Amino acid sequence: MAAGQPVEVYLDLMSQPCRAVHILLNCAGIPHRVRTVALRRGENRSPEFIKLNPMQKVPVMVLDGFVLTESDAILKYLATKYNIPDHWYPRQPERRARVDEYTAWHHSNTRPHTARVFFLEVLFPAQTGSQVEEGRLLRALSQLSETLDKLESMFLRRQAYLCGEDITLADLLAICELMQPLGGGRDVLQDRPQLQRWRDRVQAAVGEAFDRAHVVLYAVRDRRRAKL
Amino acid sequence: MAAGQPVEVYLDLMSQPCRAVHILLNCAGIPHRVRTVALRRGENRSPEFIKLNPMQKVPVMVLDGFVLTESDAILKYLATKYNIPDHWYPRQPERRARVDEYTAWHHSNTRPHTARVFFLEVLFPAQTGSQVEEGRLLRALSQLSETLDKLESMFLRRQAYLCGEDITLADLLAICELMQPLGGGRDVLQDRPQLQRWRDRVQAAVGEAFDRAHVVLYAVRDRRRAKL
Repeated sequence: MAAGQPVEVYLDLMSQPCRAVHILLNCAGIPHRVRTVALRRGENRSPEFIKLNPMQKVPVMVLDGFVLTESDAILKYLATKYNIPDHWYPRQPERRARVDEYTAWHHSNTRPHTARVFFLEVLFPAQTGSQVEEGRLLRALSQLSETLDKLESMFLRRQAYLCGEDITLADLLAICELMQPLGGGRDVLQDRPQLQRWRDRVQAAVGEAFDRAHVVLYAVRDRRRAKL
Repeated sequence: MAAGQPVEVYLDLMSQPCRAVHILLNCAGIPHRVRTVALRRGENRSPEFIKLNPMQKVPVMVLDGFVLTESDAILKYLATKYNIPDHWYPRQPERRARVDEYTAWHHSNTRPHTARVFFLEVLFPAQTGSQVEEGRLLRALSQLSETLDKLESMFLRRQAYLCGEDITLADLLAICELMQPLGGGRDVLQDRPQLQRWRDRVQAAVGEAFDRAHVVLYAVRDRRRAKL
C-alpha cells in the first residue's frame, strides 16, 4: 500500500492547509520528509519551487515522482494511498460523500471568510504599515460569524465531528483554518461553546500532532502579545 | 451497483453547478428525476426546500433517503455509486487525485471569478436597475483573465482535458462555470483559441447533453440580444 520512499511535502506551517497535511502525516504515522518553504521570505517564488508548482502555492506533495498540489487533494490522496484508519476518509460511499460535501463547502465558506479576518488584522497592517478601516473588518467578522453559525447549526447539529461521529479530513481542514486568526490574537471560537467542544475533541483525537503543527502560529501570537 | 429507484435531483438550470450534474446524469444514462427549483422565484427559500437543504442552495440530490448537497460531492458520489465509465472519476489514485486537485482549485478560482462577472453584468443590474461601476467590472474581468491564463498554461498545457487525455467531472464543473457569462452576452473564451478547442472537445464528448443543460442560459442570452 505505502510507497517505498517517504513522501516529500513542501510546507510553511503559517499556512492553514499546510498544517492540515502536517497533522495527518504525523497523526497517521505516514513516513514523510518536510521541506520548508518560507512564504514570508518569498521562497515560493524561487525558480526551483516554481518549477515544482507554477501556482507558487504550498502545500505540494511529491511521491515517487508524482507531484500533487491542493491540500484537499493531497489529504484525500494520502488517505487512499496509505493504509491509515478508514475514518479519515471513509470508503463507504455515503460517508465519503459527507467528507466531499464539507470540503467543497469549505473552499467557499470557512476558508475565505476566516482567511480574510487574518489578512485584515495581521497581513494588511504588516504589508502597509497601517491599520485596516474598521468597517471592512466588521464586515469580514460578520461574514465569518455566518459561517460559524452554519458549522454549528448544520454540520455539528447532531454529531461530534463535521462529518459524523468520528474525525475526518474535513475536521483537519476546518480547524486549521479557524485557528489562523489566533496569530492576530483573536480566538474566533471564543463565544462559541459548541465549536469549542468540537475543537477540544479534534485536539484530543490528533494528540500532540495538533500543537506540533501550530507551534509557529503560537509563536506569532506570543510575539504580538509581548509587543502590546 | 445502481440503487433501485431513480435518483432525485433538485436543480435550476440557470445555476452552473446544477448544469454539471444535469450533464453527467444524461450523458452517463443514470436513471433520475429532475425537480426544478426556480431560484428567480425564490423556491429555494420555501419551507419544504429549506427542510431538504437548510443552506437553501441547489443542486441537492436524494437517493434512497440519502440527501447530499454540493455539486462537487454529488458528481463524485454519482460516479462512485453508479457503474459509469471510469474516466469520469478514475479509480486509479494518481488520476483521481488530478480530479480532486482541479475541483479544489476550481472553488477558489474558476467559480468565484466567473460567477462575479455574471453577477456584475447580469444580476446586479437586474436587482438594482442600474449598471455596475466600470472599474469593478474591469477588475473582475482581469481576475477572470488570470484564471483563464492558468487553465491554459497549467491544466491544459500538455493534455486535451483539464485532468488528462479523457473527460472528467472537472471539465463539467469548469465548462458550466465558463458558459455562465454568455447569459449577459459575453463569451469569456472569445480570444482564447486553446480554451475554445477544449470547449469543443467537451461539447463533442458529452453530445446533446450539453445543449440540453444550457437551453435556459441560451434563452436568457437570446432575450437579452432581442432587447438591444
